[in-house]
Amino acid sequence: MYFSYGLSLLSRGLSKPIRKTTQPIWSSLSKSLVLSSQRRIPEFNSFVSRTNTCGELRSSHLGQDVTLCGWIQYRRQNIFLVLRDFHGLIQVVIPQDEKMPTGEIEVKVKTAELLNSCKKLPFEIKDFVKKTEALRLQYRYLDLRSFQMQYNLRLRSQMVMKMREYLCNLHGFVDIETPTLFKKTPGGAKEFVVASREPGKFYSLPQSPQQFKQLLMIGGLDRYFQVARCYRDEGSRPDRQPEFTQVDIEMSFVDQTGIQSLIEGLLQYSWPSDKDAVVVPFPSMTFAEALAIYGTDKPDTRFGLKIVDISDVFRNTGIGFLQDTLSKPQGTVKAICIPEGAKYLKRKDFESIRKFSVDHFNQEVLPIFLKGSKNQNSSVAKFIMEEQRLELVKLMEIQEEDVVLLTAGEHKKACSLLGKLRLECADLLEARGVVLRDPALFSFLWVVDFPLFLPKEENPRELESAHHPFTAPHPNDIHLLYTEPEKVRGQHYDLVLNGSEIGGGSIRIHNAELQHFILTTLLKEDVKLLSHLLQALDYGAPPHGGIALGLDRLMCLITGAPSIRDVIAFPKSFRGHDLMSNAPDYVPPEELKPYHIQVSWPADSEAAKSSLHHLHNPES
Amino acid sequence: MYFSYGLSLLSRGLSKPIRKTTQPIWSSLSKSLVLSSQRRIPEFNSFVSRTNTCGELRSSHLGQDVTLCGWIQYRRQNIFLVLRDFHGLIQVVIPQDEKMPTGEIEVKVKTAELLNSCKKLPFEIKDFVKKTEALRLQYRYLDLRSFQMQYNLRLRSQMVMKMREYLCNLHGFVDIETPTLFKKTPGGAKEFVVASREPGKFYSLPQSPQQFKQLLMIGGLDRYFQVARCYRDEGSRPDRQPEFTQVDIEMSFVDQTGIQSLIEGLLQYSWPSDKDAVVVPFPSMTFAEALAIYGTDKPDTRFGLKIVDISDVFRNTGIGFLQDTLSKPQGTVKAICIPEGAKYLKRKDFESIRKFSVDHFNQEVLPIFLKGSKNQNSSVAKFIMEEQRLELVKLMEIQEEDVVLLTAGEHKKACSLLGKLRLECADLLEARGVVLRDPALFSFLWVVDFPLFLPKEENPRELESAHHPFTAPHPNDIHLLYTEPEKVRGQHYDLVLNGSEIGGGSIRIHNAELQHFILTTLLKEDVKLLSHLLQALDYGAPPHGGIALGLDRLMCLITGAPSIRDVIAFPKSFRGHDLMSNAPDYVPPEELKPYHIQVSWPADSEAAKSSLHHLHNPES
Repeated sequence: MYFSYGLSLLSRGLSKPIRKTTQPIWSSLSKSLVLSSQRRIPEFNSFVSRTNTCGELRSSHLGQDVTLCGWIQYRRQNIFLVLRDFHGLIQVVIPQDEKMPTGEIEVKVKTAELLNSCKKLPFEIKDFVKKTEALRLQYRYLDLRSFQMQYNLRLRSQMVMKMREYLCNLHGFVDIETPTLFKKTPGGAKEFVVASREPGKFYSLPQSPQQFKQLLMIGGLDRYFQVARCYRDEGSRPDRQPEFTQVDIEMSFVDQTGIQSLIEGLLQYSWPSDKDAVVVPFPSMTFAEALAIYGTDKPDTRFGLKIVDISDVFRNTGIGFLQDTLSKPQGTVKAICIPEGAKYLKRKDFESIRKFSVDHFNQEVLPIFLKGSKNQNSSVAKFIMEEQRLELVKLMEIQEEDVVLLTAGEHKKACSLLGKLRLECADLLEARGVVLRDPALFSFLWVVDFPLFLPKEENPRELESAHHPFTAPHPNDIHLLYTEPEKVRGQHYDLVLNGSEIGGGSIRIHNAELQHFILTTLLKEDVKLLSHLLQALDYGAPPHGGIALGLDRLMCLITGAPSIRDVIAFPKSFRGHDLMSNAPDYVPPEELKPYHIQVSWPADSEAAKSSLHHLHNPES
Repeated sequence: MYFSYGLSLLSRGLSKPIRKTTQPIWSSLSKSLVLSSQRRIPEFNSFVSRTNTCGELRSSHLGQDVTLCGWIQYRRQNIFLVLRDFHGLIQVVIPQDEKMPTGEIEVKVKTAELLNSCKKLPFEIKDFVKKTEALRLQYRYLDLRSFQMQYNLRLRSQMVMKMREYLCNLHGFVDIETPTLFKKTPGGAKEFVVASREPGKFYSLPQSPQQFKQLLMIGGLDRYFQVARCYRDEGSRPDRQPEFTQVDIEMSFVDQTGIQSLIEGLLQYSWPSDKDAVVVPFPSMTFAEALAIYGTDKPDTRFGLKIVDISDVFRNTGIGFLQDTLSKPQGTVKAICIPEGAKYLKRKDFESIRKFSVDHFNQEVLPIFLKGSKNQNSSVAKFIMEEQRLELVKLMEIQEEDVVLLTAGEHKKACSLLGKLRLECADLLEARGVVLRDPALFSFLWVVDFPLFLPKEENPRELESAHHPFTAPHPNDIHLLYTEPEKVRGQHYDLVLNGSEIGGGSIRIHNAELQHFILTTLLKEDVKLLSHLLQALDYGAPPHGGIALGLDRLMCLITGAPSIRDVIAFPKSFRGHDLMSNAPDYVPPEELKPYHIQVSWPADSEAAKSSLHHLHNPES
């Protein structure tokens, strides 16, 4: 008879550890032991009924009485049990005859107590058993037993602990909790509202402790941090969670370099010891460079395929549309070189690249091969003259099997398109066995000198903050605020890891007058919602700045998890549902009454209304 | 000219520290330095423009160039500045003549930069300047500059850090974040609701991570903790906050003693070094004893005045109402002895004691004096016979100037009344200079063996959980569940400090069948809302238990703060308002539309409706 992993068993007063199971069933267990030994925890068995975990018995324990608690992984012939907890596995033998299994240690049972029984599990707790994510989320408490979830959550706890040691114990930061029941911020369209018992009055769940951290600086708590819960209602954007966690930091009397050094030190100190060490300082790049070279503000710098401006090669071309583009302001010709692209990319790849470019950017992209014969299908490439081809080869260091993707257009648009194609082609090449991005490599990058304002999408003659309205302008650009505000750079910095933004921050405006000018004159914001902050700046606010790291995303990249849901104990589905408990759920009208709210049912929702008493509304 | 504390000043490249200010303006600063040195933080000046804090310069720094940042505390004759940060004060001299002030060190200015100006503050940042709490909360960022708030928040941060070290580094606990957007729990009338974008569906802000911590145990994360944000909508109960913080702990394979030892070790390890050390183990008392001796489930054991059952003295009394009481079931005569009460308590005190007893307990209370002459006013006391009086003196160790408060009635009611009077009299005696409760004393106490169920207030024939429905019954009482459930004790334990409950926890039910029986048969709860938890228990749930400490209350007792608002950076007022930002606030109907809710304005709230566009709604 075979019992699925899940029975609880307490073996009390066991004696004579004789042999260990020869082969841990999960090869990953050794990794798990590495994890728990990283911190050399002196006491894993304090306060509980066990004397040892299932993973720690060795031949040095021979002859000792031990008490073990765990789940039955296997049971064979009522003689052998493999007992398991989240530190390892141990074979337990129920004495019957003198038969001796192989291995170094086993536990001979004196007494055993079955602590609980276990129904047939909806899926086996084995890494190789594939299950849908919906099933994993519905039975999250079983999914948490998997090696990967145990590893991810334990590593997260240890890494956050190291961060706290660095900030609190080594650098004198004060861990301060800020409220999550707050007031709506201007333009806070993504803020959940929480009804109060006063008719018509609502709290708002803030997207970050931004205002509080600035107020703390004004309050003289000059080195603040918090592992802060934040909220953002974004509907169903993939891989986002309605609640998420950021490592939130703010300091007084600091400049951009100070914050950057702090974060470099923080990551270096807290980095898991089983990964390659973090090298500091991190490289830095301006926003303009990042856009020009990688076509994005969050470049993945683990690999090349950089964007090259080849406008000069075509200054005197006869090819009409290149001529046209170059004659326009901001008109450029750009290209990326795909190494061995001629070998690995298929005709249909080029077709889908072309389609993507037209559909999403309304841009043409030309593949250019070094071997002229391959260009015969291209209506344009075949007209590129030999001289220009040679210049290109030299400029872009093109090898025989490479392929160049060329586009012509306005600078930003051309770069953005090639930035996307660069990542697209990297995926394609890797799918075909080319190693471009070393999975053990962590490539950090600071991106700096962002514009302070961007034209509003819906009305490009108005400005909005590129990040948030509290970001201080670059000191060299302050005079431009009054003449050409769109040219002002902000003292904002983003931290990028392997092409994902994992943090962002800025030096803040500490002058009430300047803050008022930017909010009212430049951004046309209603400052009533911010009057307390503007007033606070007037009472001797020190210069200050800070940063926030996205902890979920960071842990996701470190553990190599496919989704941030894999580094969160109880995540919501991509539609914002808790599939285990079925939240959010209907609430009877009488329970809304004390909050003076009622549901405005959409006209087509009779079905929803009638389902008020249904408990389950499973997500497909 | 005198500048109120609040100007920001950065003095760069200062030279020749010569003398220190002779007398710190705030005597409390030395205490502040003790606090920051407790942890021996190596780097308080990393990453920022200062080289030293204003508190750390000593004669050993003589001749060094230093950079200081701080606020101007005083300015005298444009020659001397007293510069201040939250680590201390330093005198800065702007060189003019060779005049030499007193003291050991001062800083001679090379260059000084005024970093910000400061409007006239609404109140001076000095401990002796009294201000209303409403004003303090409105300008919280200024109030945070007070010594006491700085001390409270920095101590809180350090103590929580020590707790984390103990749990994470020493005992292998895993810090796991659990969601705050969850599902309504059965009977969760105090849960805030958060509208989602799906019509009629709401999240709920949980009162504790109770379900999640149990699910984590089932998920094999066998030692969990979290410094968890919790929510409770209690309207306007004084000294409660709509959001609060608990140190939340759960373990597998543990019993009550294990949890108690863990908490004793945790508090001992994290206790501030400037307070008397915590002595472990803590004393323990059953709920029945606590009620009988102190008249409450959270006894303040710093002082005596214990309740004594004096029924036996009056078994054969001729006094009618004592006879009456003693003839009833549960009828008792109880008393407390107020030391030197005859000396310190006035006639009007006894009158207000009597009024309180009648008003709140519908009970008579008799003061009895040792000197018979004093009892002449009492219609009953004068009939107590000499023999009984002598017995009482012996039993209660009554001294000449003491006074005894006697009551007769049902056991629980009589104890509860005397428990209240005990505290009332302690306040009265202390107001008159008698020291009963040493403010430096921290008196911990475990209260155990609570009843598992209580009769419902609204219908005493039905039962409700004394704590929560997941508490396991006492193993010796399980058979009573099916016959006399009201007699079953729960494996619940409360931690009491100086008469305040600072923690509570229990061993949980890990058997699905038992949990189901208690929920449905005994408590008549609708288990649909808990189906995921019941199902989870069926899949090999290990035995487990835990506890939660109320961090705000604990810090309040440690710092001796008058209110938990003094240990929270940005607390809500007793009406649940943020007086700084004016939250909660009105939200325009169009911003509620995406959440499919609308406000149900009460009939009498036209005023409220029309004030939708008013920003300020100050709380008086």
